Amino acid sequence: MMAPAIEHRDHRAGHRRLPDRLDDPAVGSILHGIAAELFPICRSITGPGVRETLERLRRRIDLEIHEVPSGTAVFDWTVPREWTLRDAYVKNARGERVIDVRRNSLHVVSYSTPVQARLPLAELRRRIVTLPEQPGLIPYRTSYYAESWGFCMAHDRLLELPDGDYEVCIDATLADGSLTYGEYLHRGRSEDEILLTTHVCHPSLANDNCSGIALLSLLAERLQGVETRYSYRFLFAPGTIGAITWLARNEHRLERIRHGLVLSGVGDGGAPTYKRSRRGDAAIDRAMAHVLRHGSPSAAVIDFFPYGYDERQFCSPGFDLPVGSFQRSRFGTYPEYHTSADDLAFIRPEHLAHSYRLVTAALDVLESDATPVSLQPKCEPQLGRRGLYTAVGGDRDAPARCMAMLWVLNQADGRHSLLDIAERAGMPFAAIADTAAMLRDHGLVAFAGDGAA
Amino acid sequence: MMAPAIEHRDHRAGHRRLPDRLDDPAVGSILHGIAAELFPICRSITGPGVRETLERLRRRIDLEIHEVPSGTAVFDWTVPREWTLRDAYVKNARGERVIDVRRNSLHVVSYSTPVQARLPLAELRRRIVTLPEQPGLIPYRTSYYAESWGFCMAHDRLLELPDGDYEVCIDATLADGSLTYGEYLHRGRSEDEILLTTHVCHPSLANDNCSGIALLSLLAERLQGVETRYSYRFLFAPGTIGAITWLARNEHRLERIRHGLVLSGVGDGGAPTYKRSRRGDAAIDRAMAHVLRHGSPSAAVIDFFPYGYDERQFCSPGFDLPVGSFQRSRFGTYPEYHTSADDLAFIRPEHLAHSYRLVTAALDVLESDATPVSLQPKCEPQLGRRGLYTAVGGDRDAPARCMAMLWVLNQADGRHSLLDIAERAGMPFAAIADTAAMLRDHGLVAFAGDGAA
Amino acid sequence: MMAPAIEHRDHRAGHRRLPDRLDDPAVGSILHGIAAELFPICRSITGPGVRETLERLRRRIDLEIHEVPSGTAVFDWTVPREWTLRDAYVKNARGERVIDVRRNSLHVVSYSTPVQARLPLAELRRRIVTLPEQPGLIPYRTSYYAESWGFCMAHDRLLELPDGDYEVCIDATLADGSLTYGEYLHRGRSEDEILLTTHVCHPSLANDNCSGIALLSLLAERLQGVETRYSYRFLFAPGTIGAITWLARNEHRLERIRHGLVLSGVGDGGAPTYKRSRRGDAAIDRAMAHVLRHGSPSAAVIDFFPYGYDERQFCSPGFDLPVGSFQRSRFGTYPEYHTSADDLAFIRPEHLAHSYRLVTAALDVLESDATPVSLQPKCEPQLGRRGLYTAVGGDRDAPARCMAMLWVLNQADGRHSLLDIAERAGMPFAAIADTAAMLRDHGLVAFAGDGAA
Repeated sequence: MMAPAIEHRDHRAGHRRLPDRLDDPAVGSILHGIAAELFPICRSITGPGVRETLERLRRRIDLEIHEVPSGTAVFDWTVPREWTLRDAYVKNARGERVIDVRRNSLHVVSYSTPVQARLPLAELRRRIVTLPEQPGLIPYRTSYYAESWGFCMAHDRLLELPDGDYEVCIDATLADGSLTYGEYLHRGRSEDEILLTTHVCHPSLANDNCSGIALLSLLAERLQGVETRYSYRFLFAPGTIGAITWLARNEHRLERIRHGLVLSGVGDGGAPTYKRSRRGDAAIDRAMAHVLRHGSPSAAVIDFFPYGYDERQFCSPGFDLPVGSFQRSRFGTYPEYHTSADDLAFIRPEHLAHSYRLVTAALDVLESDATPVSLQPKCEPQLGRRGLYTAVGGDRDAPARCMAMLWVLNQADGRHSLLDIAERAGMPFAAIADTAAMLRDHGLVAFAGDGAA
Repeated sequence: MMAPAIEHRDHRAGHRRLPDRLDDPAVGSILHGIAAELFPICRSITGPGVRETLERLRRRIDLEIHEVPSGTAVFDWTVPREWTLRDAYVKNARGERVIDVRRNSLHVVSYSTPVQARLPLAELRRRIVTLPEQPGLIPYRTSYYAESWGFCMAHDRLLELPDGDYEVCIDATLADGSLTYGEYLHRGRSEDEILLTTHVCHPSLANDNCSGIALLSLLAERLQGVETRYSYRFLFAPGTIGAITWLARNEHRLERIRHGLVLSGVGDGGAPTYKRSRRGDAAIDRAMAHVLRHGSPSAAVIDFFPYGYDERQFCSPGFDLPVGSFQRSRFGTYPEYHTSADDLAFIRPEHLAHSYRLVTAALDVLESDATPVSLQPKCEPQLGRRGLYTAVGGDRDAPARCMAMLWVLNQADGRHSLLDIAERAGMPFAAIADTAAMLRDHGLVAFAGDGAA
Repeated sequence: MMAPAIEHRDHRAGHRRLPDRLDDPAVGSILHGIAAELFPICRSITGPGVRETLERLRRRIDLEIHEVPSGTAVFDWTVPREWTLRDAYVKNARGERVIDVRRNSLHVVSYSTPVQARLPLAELRRRIVTLPEQPGLIPYRTSYYAESWGFCMAHDRLLELPDGDYEVCIDATLADGSLTYGEYLHRGRSEDEILLTTHVCHPSLANDNCSGIALLSLLAERLQGVETRYSYRFLFAPGTIGAITWLARNEHRLERIRHGLVLSGVGDGGAPTYKRSRRGDAAIDRAMAHVLRHGSPSAAVIDFFPYGYDERQFCSPGFDLPVGSFQRSRFGTYPEYHTSADDLAFIRPEHLAHSYRLVTAALDVLESDATPVSLQPKCEPQLGRRGLYTAVGGDRDAPARCMAMLWVLNQADGRHSLLDIAERAGMPFAAIADTAAMLRDHGLVAFAGDGAA
């Protein structure tokens, strides 16, 4: 029902929607393809994995890459040393790799300090994290802010290891370097910005968060050449420290952010979840709730809580930005979460496409919302004389279109936006926006601030 | 429970209710009788049917009849030409009337242009509207704003027509004339008005709207000689164009309208429905909701939507008057709606009387509402010393009366009206109003603005 | 979960809770013991019964006893004559006491005028109140404001009385004297007061209200020596006339009352009931609702209504004090209410202790509430660096503690109190208050108005 596309429109009118370019049926496959490209890369909060990820995105969008030196103070935090992993394995007595990070980037605890040692199994086991209750899966673990090292593996595999000595190698450097993030700005008519951001620090986890990176990069790509009301700032940064670093470096520009979304986990088969901004009633909160109500009835809209992804930073009390968070299944609630089961089979093109359409529909609301003012406010205008009843004759959607006209005309007192009207009418925003535009073309409404009316 | 009568009272006190004059057990029969008188008349939005209807009402009330010439501009509309129907029939080959408007005024499409022709059955059928799914009923159809002609008949009857030629006659004039509406003003102590309006343009449909015309005309009649706080303006006008015309001619006086109700379909057996004004929280909205909650638990109170009867015009954004709408079954939802089954058997005296009592009870709330102020605000006054506990001894309603006293005394801080108190107490308005009056008689409360206290 | 103790703390910080002194496991037994001591005393709204009751309380707290002469005008009321009962009985022909107030103080209608007479059974019966539907129980009746006399007895016993003459004696004086109430003030750092009050006029009824007197007297005793933010005023007064008298004599000081609770019936096994103040959103209303939600899920929180105990006077419109009412089963709803079945077996130590803990937990909220302000409001502070993640490692409550930290830090913008935060987080107040104090110790938050931060 909802228009799944960024609108290409006069900002005062709120009705011209970009034709099918963004509503491509292939969108799901393309998104899955991007995620597949990014999946094998061994990302962490710093280092070559993030750089390689961002380089891949540069094939699509003119991403600006920022490098922030280790040791830079960012609010209460410090940019950490950079972690470079070259290899990590455990070899058995026969020299066979029984754990090999080249097979799955989850095998090494992220940010492990370098090690080269020979250990008996008993000692080795103390360095290995498994999931006894999901014995076939490799867990994902990090040790970002405490120096340590370790491996992750399937519990079943661990049980198969015979006694004996093992050669342990983590060929890594933890040294001064930099933290890397990528930024892309699509300029709209206004300098007011919509911030769209996702974390890029997780290794081979498809839903969390190759899916989010894919969605935002495709959206950024497809916005190129589209004229928009808002400017769109896309941020691809490592979780927590990346967002904090970006906020510290852009504090003077934050007032431009009028709306924002943190995206993650947008490819699984669960019902969509929108988590409101800390404010709870920001325009993005209303737009997302509206779009989900009409486009995904099983979706959940939940209140802000100070845990999750980088909305924690954007919604810290010193900023309190109007930034919500969109995901499908809630993080931490599905068994594949932070395990090797979060692989490319776990995310599906149709779910990715669905997420893409919901996000673009919400952006469409933000882009198109406007306040209509009736030019015939006293009694209803005579629609029949203008062919506005005839126009819809024989049309199965005619009653709904007629009601949309009556709603817009009745509510167009300059105090209700199109979204307000859509909410009161219980109709999709796009139906109301299209109707308002049609009524404007018939000279029956103008838009507040629309000099061209 | 609710007092079913307009109160005859001192406006400052809000408690003296007119004795049984308005609470006549015969009210239902009288209303049905009025409806029966009006039923056969072939009304349309203009013409002799409306005039005859209003003339009948003049036997009861000193209705002022207004004639507005065809062609008069009224906001976005123009008063149409006047339609005069003298006869309309279809005769078969033997000269027998197989359709005869004299048998049922629904047989002719309202506002049909004149025609005199002989047609074969196949052609005739294209001019006949039936209801195949309700084959025994004649539908009601109009062609107000598009020149055309046609007949309506029961589908069963249509199927019985043998092949052959038919003589078709609509002896009608569609020519410059005027639009007619009637207005009656009951003057109260204040020039502030309560607007009560109903449409008079439907032909032989009993519920829609002989019932509404009957209710308002009896109410107007019975108000004669009653001293009221508000002035009451009764408007009997054709739907849509009549309301628009009245609004256009009375725009300068609309600010006097403090409350209003559009009435229609008040005689069927369905549960009452009150549709809120566009404002949603007008005093009439609260009064009607209160009265329905206590007097008709199965009643529905629904939000405004810009479709229905003339509340569409009164609640257009340029006016936004505090006008709600009262009916029993919601229009368009019952199978008899706009068919010949909406006849005098479909409406019943008891339903008409119930509607009458509900409307008068709501008017009673508007008339009687006032703001009590306790004269003993510090601690409870000693009721026993004044015989106010004794007064109710042995009375089955004593506990409720005692609670009503305590509620009024507790809430009488000058910030709560009697309706506010009734709502908070969960008690009928009349019980609270009577109690407040009794407490005033005992010197325990005064009414805000009541110099005589 | 909730801290069941008055906190001993710096008022600016809101976190140091008094150790176990008030959280004594013996509290239930002690409360039951106090109630048992008071139970046999034949109290009324004036006279020696109230005096004796207050004298007992003086063994625990330095209660100030006030005597207000009969005839004193108190708002709309007059302090009544004092009732002194020395003996009351009915003797049969053999001189045996078939009714004897020394066996149960309920046997005489309270405030009975003196009588000495010999009556035949038929006449006597007109002076005896029984409960035919609860034939084994003695009812409780009064005749405060109408001069009369009578007895109460079990219906079964009445039926056993043989015909014949009976000697009736009520050896009582109803004469000028005084009304007695007791007051105890615990001084806190502020002159702002929390008013805690209970009625002391009922004779041998254990729940209503030996239980309330016991709870308040123990609470007052245990507050001795505790440093509190607020001053606590304890009022032990006869119902209605006692509260009215106190209000009349303290009108000039009422503005000091910031919060208040009327207590009664706190020992039965029913779920707790909190009745909101007339304001409905006073701090005491929020605190009690919060404490009940977390500490007694089956509890009911109900809106104010102008009937019940002395909240009727405190919440009269001329005062509208923020005073709520706490009881367990709602008065009048349980079969033991106002009968001899409301005895010492009907109240139990565990219910008394539960009520005590709930009340002290709510007082704890009022004492401890404060407004934290984050000193690191931009992004989250780095908790790991401060050992705040480590601190909770291996602790089963760690996730909840971590969420409490994040909630406090996120909401500490100077616009949310600890109670606001606890409500939004859905966590017990004490968990939030303790966390905020810990964060203050780590230099991460200060408290509004806390110069020592």
